[in-house]
Amino acid sequence: MMKFGLFGGARTDAGEQASDSQIYTDYVDYICEAEELGFHSVFLVEHHFTGFGQVSATLSFLTYLAAKTRTIRLGTAVLVVPWHNPALLTEQAATLDLLSNGRFDFGIGKGYRWGEFHGFCIPMEEAEERYHDTVTFMRKAWTSAGRFSHHSKFWDFEDVVIEPAPVQKPHPPLWVGAASPNSIRYAADNGFNLLLGQAGGPETVAEGISIYRRAIEAQGRVFDPATVGCTRALLIANTAAEREAARDIRAKFMANVQSLSLSPTGDTPTLGRPRKMLSRAEMDELTERDALIGPPEEIIQRLKALQAGGLEYVMVMDFTASREHLRTFAREVMPAFAE
Amino acid sequence: MMKFGLFGGARTDAGEQASDSQIYTDYVDYICEAEELGFHSVFLVEHHFTGFGQVSATLSFLTYLAAKTRTIRLGTAVLVVPWHNPALLTEQAATLDLLSNGRFDFGIGKGYRWGEFHGFCIPMEEAEERYHDTVTFMRKAWTSAGRFSHHSKFWDFEDVVIEPAPVQKPHPPLWVGAASPNSIRYAADNGFNLLLGQAGGPETVAEGISIYRRAIEAQGRVFDPATVGCTRALLIANTAAEREAARDIRAKFMANVQSLSLSPTGDTPTLGRPRKMLSRAEMDELTERDALIGPPEEIIQRLKALQAGGLEYVMVMDFTASREHLRTFAREVMPAFAE
Repeated sequence: MMKFGLFGGARTDAGEQASDSQIYTDYVDYICEAEELGFHSVFLVEHHFTGFGQVSATLSFLTYLAAKTRTIRLGTAVLVVPWHNPALLTEQAATLDLLSNGRFDFGIGKGYRWGEFHGFCIPMEEAEERYHDTVTFMRKAWTSAGRFSHHSKFWDFEDVVIEPAPVQKPHPPLWVGAASPNSIRYAADNGFNLLLGQAGGPETVAEGISIYRRAIEAQGRVFDPATVGCTRALLIANTAAEREAARDIRAKFMANVQSLSLSPTGDTPTLGRPRKMLSRAEMDELTERDALIGPPEEIIQRLKALQAGGLEYVMVMDFTASREHLRTFAREVMPAFAE
Repeated sequence: MMKFGLFGGARTDAGEQASDSQIYTDYVDYICEAEELGFHSVFLVEHHFTGFGQVSATLSFLTYLAAKTRTIRLGTAVLVVPWHNPALLTEQAATLDLLSNGRFDFGIGKGYRWGEFHGFCIPMEEAEERYHDTVTFMRKAWTSAGRFSHHSKFWDFEDVVIEPAPVQKPHPPLWVGAASPNSIRYAADNGFNLLLGQAGGPETVAEGISIYRRAIEAQGRVFDPATVGCTRALLIANTAAEREAARDIRAKFMANVQSLSLSPTGDTPTLGRPRKMLSRAEMDELTERDALIGPPEEIIQRLKALQAGGLEYVMVMDFTASREHLRTFAREVMPAFAE
């Protein structure tokens, strides 16, 4: 049985027309309907200083959702660790896990957007080291008996105990995004669940899962397919015109992510993101290869190809956050994977 | 008509026996019942590293409560500003204000507990300056049109815009605790609402309100009694034995706050808290002077004395977080002030 989640990064594109309050309220309703329709999880981005209303206080927002929902798992994809005070972050994460009764999936990353590093005045070169430092802190906090201290290049904590304790033991699952073979093996070797991104066709996804699986098994552990999630753009399109419009939406999204990743001059190195602007034809080719595009029957076939490669957990990302698409997907696509 | 809120610092004293999960769930139910009983607000503390389960991620917890409640105002008393990244704090505060539809009361402080400064490795001498720095940042964030930068001794932000925007304009009311005439005047002169603490008898409360009122009026503004809240310990006691037990509970609380404020050797200066251990007789004298102690009729008289001094907003703090006390107070005391 394949599981389906939502990847929530897109909704706030509507922010230019709507008020923040309306965006948030609509999005809460959207998640509540997704839960009723049988979605297993929602994963939300964290972004800062964008100027178009992307969710910033993601753990706060998920904690609100914890009260509004009962079964759906609540995830970050990803929370950008280097922005946060490790102790406050660990407390907030545990509080969410506790109030959601163990429904928190803690996706973490090191950040990639130039404007965020610039805004926080944190050098991009420190991202990796800050990220590892905080992961070390969190694991210490969640596995130490009693008080502990932590001193690093970035943070000092003396004789602390982190409360509350999370419900999931020893801590909520940690998920990391990875694409290259090395980073996939790193995830497996270090006890992280794996988030595969929306770029890469079915062969790439199958290869990623296979690398992860082999690395897990090499440790003598049993591979659990629920520990690998893959995000796919969802572009339901019943006609050629709708398909063209859908490609158009995704092309705008890709250009937008790229421009947010780069410095204004475009020459600052970014963290693991494409540096070269793609042509529209290249973007369309990638969309046709990677996205869940087409009418429901085609989307089912695309999902079957992913499933054949070992994927059992897909997070769909609908750039328009359309209720209609959500319902169509739940009613016409999901039943084909229900048994 | 007098307004009543809850000051929620006490509940987690039960933490030594109960699980974190049970403590949080019970406390959510307690607040929900308080809303039904007509309480106007709940103000929660923020504390770290205590080892007995005090709420740490207070804004997260209030954001959860925002989803579980409809009318009750949600406050911090106080959020300790120096622990937080100013940008993340401002985002979290606005997210709570937005999701609660403008019900956030933002009480802020500089901290006073030795163990927290020690744990965060932040020198106590920096508390005041850090606090003012962050308040400056927040006001800038909530009143600037467009992007702004902020560079200080402690934080650097370049070209940022803080999203989402709060519902209350220009921002949620800022409340500060103050006791001395100078700090009360400072609050009035700088646009803060006033939180008077649980120490000080009716004359002291009346004097504090009068100082605040005169300072507000000296600016040509109209004094609004809803901008002054005073916390009182609530100790419902119908018999002499219950009264003695209630004094005992408060004495333990006072000793506990004092020991948490001080360094292990007791010789480190604390921020504005008593340095000398009080005898039990001195504690009982203060409790009889300051607390809402006694049977409901006596508590009504004590509140009338406060009201005569100009107080129209009382936050009650029940160290036992007893549902029975909550109901007795709502049904037998509050109606006397309902007209």
